[in-house]
Amino acid sequence: MIPEESASVHDEHLIEVFESREELLQGKFLRVLRDVVKLPNGHLATREFVTHPGAVMIVPMTDDGRLVMERQYRYPVQQVFLEFPAGKLDAGESVFDCAKRELLEETGYSATEWARAGLLHPTISYSTEFIDIWFARGLRAGIRKLDDSEFLDVVLVSPAELLQGCFDGTVTDAKTLTATLWLQNVQAGAWILDWQTVRVG
Amino acid sequence: MIPEESASVHDEHLIEVFESREELLQGKFLRVLRDVVKLPNGHLATREFVTHPGAVMIVPMTDDGRLVMERQYRYPVQQVFLEFPAGKLDAGESVFDCAKRELLEETGYSATEWARAGLLHPTISYSTEFIDIWFARGLRAGIRKLDDSEFLDVVLVSPAELLQGCFDGTVTDAKTLTATLWLQNVQAGAWILDWQTVRVG
Repeated sequence: MIPEESASVHDEHLIEVFESREELLQGKFLRVLRDVVKLPNGHLATREFVTHPGAVMIVPMTDDGRLVMERQYRYPVQQVFLEFPAGKLDAGESVFDCAKRELLEETGYSATEWARAGLLHPTISYSTEFIDIWFARGLRAGIRKLDDSEFLDVVLVSPAELLQGCFDGTVTDAKTLTATLWLQNVQAGAWILDWQTVRVG
Repeated sequence: MIPEESASVHDEHLIEVFESREELLQGKFLRVLRDVVKLPNGHLATREFVTHPGAVMIVPMTDDGRLVMERQYRYPVQQVFLEFPAGKLDAGESVFDCAKRELLEETGYSATEWARAGLLHPTISYSTEFIDIWFARGLRAGIRKLDDSEFLDVVLVSPAELLQGCFDGTVTDAKTLTATLWLQNVQAGAWILDWQTVRVG
């Protein structure tokens, strides 16, 4: 993974060190901090960023090989997006509990088999957010429990349709594109998931 | 692309409509707005989001099949990330001019062939940011021109190393994971790019 040009195992020449912090905004949803940091050359700079509790995304696969996805209007970008189900961690909640909860609340599905795939960071330049990536199968349809202010369609999409959408520009949500990279390699047998069977309550 | 469950071609049941706007923050780097929106059920809700001018990412491929990438410390996540070169649009700048400029400034490389691949939205729930995705080949090494406060290593990585990093958790930057989906499908011949030859100034 580390080519000759970066043979140094030490990253001191890259790392920025915390000096002081100011809270710029505590909104209803967004919190923004401004830190003063010491750069590798000793100079000071400011870094502004959104704090985020972390989130989980689920790639739910039906027995007939389709994907449970969502169509949802995303106000900042003023578009309806095709996305995999995802949601923020509640305080103290584990990523697996969050994955089960979000899948059920948003789509109505529960799953008997789960596998943690990996992690993505959507916006490393100005947010602390991470999204944990989970696959789910052994799906059973049920009743979803959307928040009062949540409006989304649940749709079933084949992997071929999803890949075509990623190519033709229909799918541009970064977490969903990342999930598609995982899906393609898992389905090709190149990336192996560690499936766990769980009891559905 | 549209399965039977979402057969409606109209998205009125999903769309949120602007009512009013308040600027919550104008920082040195981040600007945050809070809009009041009308939900599909007629109720009002608030949406807080970061405004962003848009950005460009480049997938630069050397003649011997390696990728020009960067290792950079990302303060909000407190880690060094392996990333494709990327940067924000200057005011009035085209995405292609931005791609050429960022590749040169950050890595020192210029390219004689370019292809626009697609688009990604990193954070559709709280940012207006888009990242335009470009491929570059016919690379010629030169002198990079980093900002005073930019510290990054330029590294050459094989596609196999990159894919392994995406699988093993070394690579978690969403734009880079999205670029890897593009790269894998382009190299497999499944997704075709429209290459343009350009004069290098």
